[in-house]
Amino acid sequence: MLIGFCFGRVILETFRPSKFSFVRSTTRIFHHSSTMAKSKFEYVRLFETEDRCLPNAWIVVRVDGKGFHKFSTEHDYEKPNDLRALSLMNNAAMSVMEEFKDICLAYGQSDEYSFVFRKETQVYSRRSAKLSTNVCSLFTSAFVYYWSEHFPTSKPLYPPVFDGRTVLYPSNQNIRDYLSWRQADCHINNLYNTTFWALILKAGLTPVEAEQKLKGTLSGDKNEILFSQFSINYNKEPEMLRKGTTLVRRKVPIALPDGGTREKSQIVQLHTDIIGDEFWNENNHLLTIS
Amino acid sequence: MLIGFCFGRVILETFRPSKFSFVRSTTRIFHHSSTMAKSKFEYVRLFETEDRCLPNAWIVVRVDGKGFHKFSTEHDYEKPNDLRALSLMNNAAMSVMEEFKDICLAYGQSDEYSFVFRKETQVYSRRSAKLSTNVCSLFTSAFVYYWSEHFPTSKPLYPPVFDGRTVLYPSNQNIRDYLSWRQADCHINNLYNTTFWALILKAGLTPVEAEQKLKGTLSGDKNEILFSQFSINYNKEPEMLRKGTTLVRRKVPIALPDGGTREKSQIVQLHTDIIGDEFWNENNHLLTIS
Amino acid sequence: MLIGFCFGRVILETFRPSKFSFVRSTTRIFHHSSTMAKSKFEYVRLFETEDRCLPNAWIVVRVDGKGFHKFSTEHDYEKPNDLRALSLMNNAAMSVMEEFKDICLAYGQSDEYSFVFRKETQVYSRRSAKLSTNVCSLFTSAFVYYWSEHFPTSKPLYPPVFDGRTVLYPSNQNIRDYLSWRQADCHINNLYNTTFWALILKAGLTPVEAEQKLKGTLSGDKNEILFSQFSINYNKEPEMLRKGTTLVRRKVPIALPDGGTREKSQIVQLHTDIIGDEFWNENNHLLTIS
Amino acid sequence: MLIGFCFGRVILETFRPSKFSFVRSTTRIFHHSSTMAKSKFEYVRLFETEDRCLPNAWIVVRVDGKGFHKFSTEHDYEKPNDLRALSLMNNAAMSVMEEFKDICLAYGQSDEYSFVFRKETQVYSRRSAKLSTNVCSLFTSAFVYYWSEHFPTSKPLYPPVFDGRTVLYPSNQNIRDYLSWRQADCHINNLYNTTFWALILKAGLTPVEAEQKLKGTLSGDKNEILFSQFSINYNKEPEMLRKGTTLVRRKVPIALPDGGTREKSQIVQLHTDIIGDEFWNENNHLLTIS
Repeated sequence: MLIGFCFGRVILETFRPSKFSFVRSTTRIFHHSSTMAKSKFEYVRLFETEDRCLPNAWIVVRVDGKGFHKFSTEHDYEKPNDLRALSLMNNAAMSVMEEFKDICLAYGQSDEYSFVFRKETQVYSRRSAKLSTNVCSLFTSAFVYYWSEHFPTSKPLYPPVFDGRTVLYPSNQNIRDYLSWRQADCHINNLYNTTFWALILKAGLTPVEAEQKLKGTLSGDKNEILFSQFSINYNKEPEMLRKGTTLVRRKVPIALPDGGTREKSQIVQLHTDIIGDEFWNENNHLLTIS
Repeated sequence: MLIGFCFGRVILETFRPSKFSFVRSTTRIFHHSSTMAKSKFEYVRLFETEDRCLPNAWIVVRVDGKGFHKFSTEHDYEKPNDLRALSLMNNAAMSVMEEFKDICLAYGQSDEYSFVFRKETQVYSRRSAKLSTNVCSLFTSAFVYYWSEHFPTSKPLYPPVFDGRTVLYPSNQNIRDYLSWRQADCHINNLYNTTFWALILKAGLTPVEAEQKLKGTLSGDKNEILFSQFSINYNKEPEMLRKGTTLVRRKVPIALPDGGTREKSQIVQLHTDIIGDEFWNENNHLLTIS
Repeated sequence: MLIGFCFGRVILETFRPSKFSFVRSTTRIFHHSSTMAKSKFEYVRLFETEDRCLPNAWIVVRVDGKGFHKFSTEHDYEKPNDLRALSLMNNAAMSVMEEFKDICLAYGQSDEYSFVFRKETQVYSRRSAKLSTNVCSLFTSAFVYYWSEHFPTSKPLYPPVFDGRTVLYPSNQNIRDYLSWRQADCHINNLYNTTFWALILKAGLTPVEAEQKLKGTLSGDKNEILFSQFSINYNKEPEMLRKGTTLVRRKVPIALPDGGTREKSQIVQLHTDIIGDEFWNENNHLLTIS
Repeated sequence: MLIGFCFGRVILETFRPSKFSFVRSTTRIFHHSSTMAKSKFEYVRLFETEDRCLPNAWIVVRVDGKGFHKFSTEHDYEKPNDLRALSLMNNAAMSVMEEFKDICLAYGQSDEYSFVFRKETQVYSRRSAKLSTNVCSLFTSAFVYYWSEHFPTSKPLYPPVFDGRTVLYPSNQNIRDYLSWRQADCHINNLYNTTFWALILKAGLTPVEAEQKLKGTLSGDKNEILFSQFSINYNKEPEMLRKGTTLVRRKVPIALPDGGTREKSQIVQLHTDIIGDEFWNENNHLLTIS
């Protein structure tokens, strides 16, 4: 409601007996219908349901592009990866993470981004729909808002859409496995896409031929194709493409005018492995209660 | 996932025994870690919960501006109502309704919009979070996307956000009462705001003085203030402000090249009373199963 | 909690600063650990979730025998129907309906019973688990409690169990269809069982032979087998077996000492068709808001 | 459904076209109505909702006596504690734990019992209502069934009822805190009740006087009253009353005919502190994945 501060007043009016003796007739009708209406309709609020997340569980909100295969084609995304599109995704995710201080980590790849809230967060009283819709709306909003900074020469052809979902993970192992699942997905898809588009763009295959050639191949086979046919060492490909992007907060020193420094929390972008233990050992505050 | 068609292939790979005899060592390591990872992490999908809406109940998704009191001030919305802002809201709502054919009616006022899905809709298998996040994301996206058409001289200062919620209403009376609740809210707030801002802009009161003056007043009192002090007959104010905006689909005749006509479904904007029976009698298809 | 009225006191104690100067040491330890414990552990209450049923929807709680195929064999239930067992089921259902005044109708057949609460009921604030567990517990309790009145010569071999579930139905048609579904199930199973056991008990077939003979038969075929082989006109079989049992409340006249009468609400058992309109026309108060 | 194995057959019949040429008219009517009915009504199954518990979280089902303050008075439970009633509670809980092998611990006090399922349990696919109603029904059933073994001279006056609820606890600390909460509750209530009834039964106070005397007292005060007025050292009271009853499974050696032994899992009753670490250190298998 735009004018939230009206509300107490309004309720007061609703249940107050009508006691003024003179009003113009049109007013009277209006008044009666509206106040009676209010008190009579208010009950529909009871149909809204509670959806608080279980306490002491990790809350993940994942946003996912809707129809982005089509969207990426229509907007001439470069294949297999469009760095502008990925940096726009990261930009939108930064906006979300700046707004919600209780997001301790975000992980993005392709057209999706996962936001991990602190286990103890009380944001929106942990209401599931509030969390998913707010994150999803802000992400979408920022994606459109910052579009022109990443695609300076064109406007989106239509408003892009992301869906969102809230999922709970009880243990530290579960949340790590969730993130590993997304990063493994990034790896598998990116290896496939890199090979697929090399076959098309460099070897001149049609999409159907490329798909046929890759059918049933394992990771090793694709690495081999890339290396022998295209002299691409997949492991030398940019880490952002192979690993996705991880956002975390870091204390960074800020220079003060007097020559001293102070620490400030800042969001940093990493393109690193988050499946193994190393990342978690280096960022062990993430899995401990702050 | 951006490249959805990879998925079957990927799964196949995951569970296939490694049987190739020669790969470069780095590849081999990569391959093993990724496939093992995949099969090991996939289980986290089971943590996602079912949230299908009860069948045969009206589904309403309401989107609501987040912090729009502040947003409207920062963007110099005209007081008490900014027609550009309202037409942008309507534009965004039209985008949602064009996308979701199962939305049979939408009602908007101030910074909120309610979308009513057909009772029988099977969109997203009636999954609550899918519905709320998709509608909310598209609404937000369109709001930013079409901003410049309604505010041609400025850009938003930051990405605006709307939250969303899905609520069920079992009976026709319930869904009518829900909409009546929102329209009564529109009336009460608009009458208050109209009077409040007249006192400030035309009588020179401060916001605190205006609030003080209106404290405890009834609708009739506010009508009286408007009429006697400002010669405003509230009932002559634009209907869009007093009644909000209702979007419904109408069959309209389309002229054909051969001189004939055919019918086409089109979304129309109404600013009419939806509390009384008249609207529902004229649109009785809305409450009957199509 | 057995001594509910302690609770306010207990809370008081918990948060009250310790101010007594002398206690025996063991007591002191005890006191400290328990009060500190209390305030420290109380938070686990927050893990309980809200599960209120949607307002204005029919609430059905259905209880269903667990492993009753085995239970009926072990307790020598007569085949195809044991009237003692059915009357015990009805007895247990009557106990539930006497306790919960907001149950307006119950329907039972075989080892299951459905309890229909008034749409408007506020029992247990419409909390789903409260409703299902209370109904299920009372039904089970009464089933064991009244066992000996129906099976006077034996005790159950072990405690019988019923599971329970709460299901919502938004419209009058839905609730009627739900009950029709259960009664159609009663008919189909009873016709099958009547024929199946006639083949075994009267024609000397083995269960496997009887099953084989009935494989793929339609209702008409089973009626024909019953009539031609066993001279059984299925439609003359007792209505309780063919239709199940419906419990409703009826106003019945009570004779007063002074020769007058007064009306009293009483639960009556019917064995009638509840699929067609006749029952609902005669009991039209059931589907209207009281 | 009693005769579950009919079901496939029934479905088959339902959707099979009617093709027999001769049936007696009554049969034909019957047949048609039932098969059409079946296919037409079956849809109501879709109104049942999924309620699977979050994976990897502790599942607790707690049953709680309904109106047991009244029940205990009507059945002349001894005050402040009736050992027969408590042993009946334990007996009922043993029945539940014998049936559900995935319950690793149960804790009972007063008229309540909590059953803790292994974190990984897949019983009933972790469906919340299935778990709560089955546990609650079996507990109730066993309570009535074994009543006469604990109260040999009387029958319950009416069927006793227990409600049930399913609650999730994500971490080991949470489940320990849950159990600590219940045991702290046991302590506080039992100390109160012991003092309350000593004042009534031994000092001749009325309930109102006893309540008045205890108003605002702390644990230390009650210990003092018990000791100084009644020479009762509360800490020497039976542990079952002060600590409640904990059920766990233990491997116990079984003597074999050949003179050897083998291990067997058995449920044992403990009346020990489960708030401190000692119990959990001794039973550390409980909190680790088996």
